[in-house]
Amino acid sequence: MLLPGFRDFYPDDCATRNYIITQWRTVARRYGFVEYDGPVVESIDLYRKKSGGELVGQLFDFVDKGARAVALRPEMTPTLARMVAARERDFRKPLKWFSVGRFFRYEKQQRGRLREFYQLNCDIIGENSPAADAECIALLVDLLRQFGFNDDDFVVRISNRNAWSSFLDDEGASAERLSDFLEVIDKMERADPETTREKLKTLGVSLEAVTRFLQTPAAEHKSFAEVRANLEARELGKYVEFDLKIVRGLAYYTGFVFEVFDRRKKLRALAGGGRYDKLLALMSDDRVELPALGFAMGDVVLSELMHETPAAQSRLQNALAANRPAQIYLIIAKEERRLNALRDVQRLRDAGYTVDFSLVAAKVGKQFQTAEQIGARFAVLYGDEWPQVKIKTLATREEVLLPAEQLLDHLAARASR
Amino acid sequence: MLLPGFRDFYPDDCATRNYIITQWRTVARRYGFVEYDGPVVESIDLYRKKSGGELVGQLFDFVDKGARAVALRPEMTPTLARMVAARERDFRKPLKWFSVGRFFRYEKQQRGRLREFYQLNCDIIGENSPAADAECIALLVDLLRQFGFNDDDFVVRISNRNAWSSFLDDEGASAERLSDFLEVIDKMERADPETTREKLKTLGVSLEAVTRFLQTPAAEHKSFAEVRANLEARELGKYVEFDLKIVRGLAYYTGFVFEVFDRRKKLRALAGGGRYDKLLALMSDDRVELPALGFAMGDVVLSELMHETPAAQSRLQNALAANRPAQIYLIIAKEERRLNALRDVQRLRDAGYTVDFSLVAAKVGKQFQTAEQIGARFAVLYGDEWPQVKIKTLATREEVLLPAEQLLDHLAARASR
Repeated sequence: MLLPGFRDFYPDDCATRNYIITQWRTVARRYGFVEYDGPVVESIDLYRKKSGGELVGQLFDFVDKGARAVALRPEMTPTLARMVAARERDFRKPLKWFSVGRFFRYEKQQRGRLREFYQLNCDIIGENSPAADAECIALLVDLLRQFGFNDDDFVVRISNRNAWSSFLDDEGASAERLSDFLEVIDKMERADPETTREKLKTLGVSLEAVTRFLQTPAAEHKSFAEVRANLEARELGKYVEFDLKIVRGLAYYTGFVFEVFDRRKKLRALAGGGRYDKLLALMSDDRVELPALGFAMGDVVLSELMHETPAAQSRLQNALAANRPAQIYLIIAKEERRLNALRDVQRLRDAGYTVDFSLVAAKVGKQFQTAEQIGARFAVLYGDEWPQVKIKTLATREEVLLPAEQLLDHLAARASR
Repeated sequence: MLLPGFRDFYPDDCATRNYIITQWRTVARRYGFVEYDGPVVESIDLYRKKSGGELVGQLFDFVDKGARAVALRPEMTPTLARMVAARERDFRKPLKWFSVGRFFRYEKQQRGRLREFYQLNCDIIGENSPAADAECIALLVDLLRQFGFNDDDFVVRISNRNAWSSFLDDEGASAERLSDFLEVIDKMERADPETTREKLKTLGVSLEAVTRFLQTPAAEHKSFAEVRANLEARELGKYVEFDLKIVRGLAYYTGFVFEVFDRRKKLRALAGGGRYDKLLALMSDDRVELPALGFAMGDVVLSELMHETPAAQSRLQNALAANRPAQIYLIIAKEERRLNALRDVQRLRDAGYTVDFSLVAAKVGKQFQTAEQIGARFAVLYGDEWPQVKIKTLATREEVLLPAEQLLDHLAARASR
């Protein structure tokens, strides 16, 4: 029995999964990002110290046979920070790194949440200019556009934790209680206003001051203006909005944070990220100071939005339709030609074609039917015509008879590898 | 800290890992195999009942937060059997399925063994003809040839458990003790002959009879003759040998079993597999009877052999060299041209090119240096010439000056996407 929260990937599901992963890789590479990866199991300390409350409660953790407290990775950032802190001198800055893999959370199954899921992570390390934030956000936008989504379908909401630090300063409240304060902001939309007012009061801030600050025009936040100008130069301005209510749950964030939502607000966040300028120093014994930022995008909510968006659906369907098991199907009409056919199966595969055939004797009609079912473009017939073979283009029913040794030359101009 | 037996994949390591996975996928697809996958965590019962002794002792197992006894998957076959048994009616037979993923074993670290590794699995389900065994073995051979190995580097040793059942029958020994018997055969090469003789005696067989049987010419084993003829028609005969000493550790095997070794016998097995005709019935409530066979190939021993084989090394190095982070590097010689450059960065990426640039102001010489270091083919210069840009082909130092709006047309004929 499949465990709850886990998935089997039958061939169609696997093709969809691979489509998502291929789009992720393709777009990340266009941006000059290079791929890395880490282990799926890490020491639990990596998460306890760095990620903060929410994630630790959902850790898929256990004690291994060597009495180590370990966890199946819930996110990539701690692993990335660990890896970079250990060898940062080996790499030219800024690092532009991405990774695709499986992640795990032990939580109740609910819409958009599974215990095992795929996630893309993209990070820029070693650059504190808002230009790096803009590059990351542009990548995030293009990743979503690649799937066929446009600005009617999604929006990137950008905020800046530093704006809230300044606000607390200006209000004469303690900036040390920033994370408690951000937690109130995070819950504010769903909470009763009086509860929010009470909580803010204990932090030395009034609800009115917060409400006023939330309405500050984006243009007045200088750092955001720079990001916006950068994105507008790329003609990507329409995909982003400044929204101070976005704060993100993880403790390690500093500066910009952002989340992507579907425009109809029906789903959970599609992706999220931000700056974590202090994390590398925290992870390294010799306190490597490197500014850093990045984001993660999972496959589960993304798949839900693809399902609801016709343009994304048709891109996926086109990609899946191109994914035929074999381009060339050999039809063995006479069993005494089987070994000749096998020789050509091998030659064609050696030449890089996808090739299939019936492993055992079968009626010719049945073999043609299989060729059609698997979406083969060419059927090659081994029968009475030997040492000639008949090549049939299945879509057009066009037939050519030629000596078997000319088969490869004939296909070279017609089939793809 | 990285856990013992696990690996970090820094960009170079990750590129090598991806190279291996890409070769695996490419060759499996050429054979008409389609990809599937399962979860990384499974109920421990799946392995306890099916895999037999050796693997259960090495399971990376634990109790999850829901009090379930679970394990990180040590092999794919039980998952595949579970998946196929659940939905076999949905698929045309025979199924030709492959999968690539991470697997886990909790065992002492030693050469060729890690706690987390990658494995390719290829299986044919629903065909009991030796033609299916030959197709699997041909695929296995071609997988290794794809990496640049030839018959000087590796050999596939094929055996057949049925031959040993017949032998026990002929000797008047109990065929029910086949698995105890095979265990003795498996250990025989490394064991003291007198110990082997004693063990065989308790099973009702003499060491002399076993030794004689091991020397039977391959041609006398009818089923093997058919596989050999099939492989010889493909001109792959030289890669395989019949060797009854190969028995494989897993309890579920029936019929043919095979393992791949490096010719110099320095390493552990590179791959192994065989028939498991009874496993599907065991895994399904309604006892789905489907003959099946398959094999697995891991990345660890394969990497060791690649490292020792010059032809394989040079293929790997060629593949890695082609893997440049960006093909086009934009050089911003005047900061007032940054937004113009950003617009072109976006246009080029939208057109599918890999593109990078300096996120912040930098000296022109430094920017050219980075372009060279990342292996870019073209540098595009944004400076005094604006609205013209200078395109430099880095290998030849050739330069062209043209209006920025002609950049895409110019590159379309020269750059690859």
